[in-house]
Amino acid sequence: MAGVKGQVQQRGVERRRAMVDAALELFGRQGVRGTGLATVAERAGTTASALIHHFGSKDGLVRAVLAEADRRALARLGAAPEAEPTLEQAFAWFVRDAEHTAATERELTALHTTLTAENLTPGTALHDWFRDRGRALRSHLAAAFARAAADGTARPDLDPATLAAETAAFLEGAHLLWLLDPEHIDLPALHRSYFTGLSARLTPPPA
Amino acid sequence: MAGVKGQVQQRGVERRRAMVDAALELFGRQGVRGTGLATVAERAGTTASALIHHFGSKDGLVRAVLAEADRRALARLGAAPEAEPTLEQAFAWFVRDAEHTAATERELTALHTTLTAENLTPGTALHDWFRDRGRALRSHLAAAFARAAADGTARPDLDPATLAAETAAFLEGAHLLWLLDPEHIDLPALHRSYFTGLSARLTPPPA
Repeated sequence: MAGVKGQVQQRGVERRRAMVDAALELFGRQGVRGTGLATVAERAGTTASALIHHFGSKDGLVRAVLAEADRRALARLGAAPEAEPTLEQAFAWFVRDAEHTAATERELTALHTTLTAENLTPGTALHDWFRDRGRALRSHLAAAFARAAADGTARPDLDPATLAAETAAFLEGAHLLWLLDPEHIDLPALHRSYFTGLSARLTPPPA
Repeated sequence: MAGVKGQVQQRGVERRRAMVDAALELFGRQGVRGTGLATVAERAGTTASALIHHFGSKDGLVRAVLAEADRRALARLGAAPEAEPTLEQAFAWFVRDAEHTAATERELTALHTTLTAENLTPGTALHDWFRDRGRALRSHLAAAFARAAADGTARPDLDPATLAAETAAFLEGAHLLWLLDPEHIDLPALHRSYFTGLSARLTPPPA
């Protein structure tokens, strides 16, 4: 009995993954507004009502797609979600992520930016998801700054929360600038410059 | 005759200004999509066809509103459009602008960010306007960095174009983060931290 139940659960997981994969590709290519649930269902070999059953609503499916994109980015960097990177490691991840984004991820990045801008106001469908994602990123970053200040690899008087917000602001803005003007904005070079400058700022004063 | 012609032109300028003022207020409060031309016309004491006559289309009116918002920001800072500020002056302007924005300009900033995100793709109505505005801002910033490198107030080996892009990225991203999470993001404090750090990075090495 346990074996049969396990198989059924396994099939449910696979079906859910096929739905998210299909939606990720279609949303990335033609936007959320331009993609009906019926189209996602057809691509995933299922029905619109099965999508609603799994995700509750189209917004639920969009949240699952955004979470999957984040999960893939972490996996690509070889970063465990519970990792406690050094600042040097974290900065290197952001540069590598920018290289990958500039090479292959225009559609997904544009989707992310457009959806953020559509959900700035409390009460919009994805507002809390984006706000909480931002808070989580800043909290991880602040922890990395605090560890570096504590272990002496960065100056002890740095302000972890403000530096985390500043870095998150740079990351959001760099992607926006690049999306708007890819001919003039070199996304990886911009990241290298920012993180090189930030490292220099944070170097502890000579003892 | 010249006097009459001058009066007619003057009335045309005033009428145009009333239209832009009405649109600025309405777009800021209820968004572009939520504001019909008829509503703008009524507020400005004119007709929708007079709006089309002056601006060509609703997109033309939106461009005029965005340009007017930029003009007001410069005027508020006491900055002439052709000014050649020092880095210190430019950084102080950005901090003062952030203070003003955080105090009073949420709607207009949200409008700017939402419209940027809706016009990332070449061919969208306002794409070239936002792209060219970004280029102009970066060009002004790069010139200020280059002047500081040349006159010895900043290190001579700085890269003006990359620093300009980095600063523009920070500015865009900081506003986005603040719009999404004003309870957790202190926009002026974030600006002070970024520009203090940037100044420290650019200090020329001791001779």
